[in-house]
Amino acid sequence: MKGEVRIDISARHVHLNKESVDILFGKDYVLTEKKKIAVGALANERLTLVGPKKEISNVGILLPLRKETQVEISMTDSYALGVAAPVRLSGDVANSAGIVLVGPAGRLELKEGVIVAKRHLHIGPGLAAKYGLTDADSVKIRVESQERSVVYEDVCVRICKPGKNEEIPSVHLDTDEGNAAGIKGSAEGIMIIE
Amino acid sequence: MKGEVRIDISARHVHLNKESVDILFGKDYVLTEKKKIAVGALANERLTLVGPKKEISNVGILLPLRKETQVEISMTDSYALGVAAPVRLSGDVANSAGIVLVGPAGRLELKEGVIVAKRHLHIGPGLAAKYGLTDADSVKIRVESQERSVVYEDVCVRICKPGKNEEIPSVHLDTDEGNAAGIKGSAEGIMIIE
Repeated sequence: MKGEVRIDISARHVHLNKESVDILFGKDYVLTEKKKIAVGALANERLTLVGPKKEISNVGILLPLRKETQVEISMTDSYALGVAAPVRLSGDVANSAGIVLVGPAGRLELKEGVIVAKRHLHIGPGLAAKYGLTDADSVKIRVESQERSVVYEDVCVRICKPGKNEEIPSVHLDTDEGNAAGIKGSAEGIMIIE
Repeated sequence: MKGEVRIDISARHVHLNKESVDILFGKDYVLTEKKKIAVGALANERLTLVGPKKEISNVGILLPLRKETQVEISMTDSYALGVAAPVRLSGDVANSAGIVLVGPAGRLELKEGVIVAKRHLHIGPGLAAKYGLTDADSVKIRVESQERSVVYEDVCVRICKPGKNEEIPSVHLDTDEGNAAGIKGSAEGIMIIE
């Protein structure tokens, strides 16, 4: 079976909890919203990632705050920074890589929390039922581009709350994955269910 | 039809001509060989790429020298540097992106020569004939990995001189493409001819 999907490329970003904000930006600092995005909002504030090999500055922070601080980078970033970030679904950070976060008020040494996001697809329960998909299933996504079309396998299905992504599923890829197909920002693709 | 291939990931690198070496390293400087690689040799010397947005230092130089100076970067690099490098086969640099190269003896402003290498496959003429492939054909390459298997379409066939890549074709991907399948350095893959 096949169906249309929308593909969005996630740049490297950080999710923070309250304790991390206190350390990086100062006690009870409240991050400010720059713009709404599909998965929440992007903050005006930025952070620097400091790895053993390199620093990457100007890294975006996603809102709202979470229970766990988590850093999502591309594999290109992981080699540049010198951290061995595993490919994981968001939230699955046990024994992932560590890193140092630097903000205007302080420095936070994370023992774990750095991952390369496993590619995934958000789909509403109604639409998922139509396709016969359940949470954690794998699908393939094909993206046609002029110079470098790609079929991404192992795209993990995440069933959303009812009402979200019921018309078209939303696929999240990182920048390496997007670049491998020449996608900048977003694209359309075809879901292949075998 | 299907067949095995070897996949090698090309990190960003520079090809220089004699005139560029003279400017960057000094008149009649001879670059020295650090190690042999499949496509020639890597020099001990390194260069810095300076784009409008960022610099990237410690960039490798491939030997032997060529007639035309050419810079091959990933799409991740092109966004970081701030240069609009097109996806092109090696040598096809007309109206490609410009950049500034900086070496120990000088600075070279390239008006064009910066590309994102189009993925391609080197195959000997004997093996190509077996598969019914001719130069500039397109094939697909599938790479199976634990977390992120990929099928790369639009892989351009390049027929080598007789005697090279007659046992197994060699596929060249850039780091973004390799990372999209979790490949570090090299991997095995399957060529799919349709």
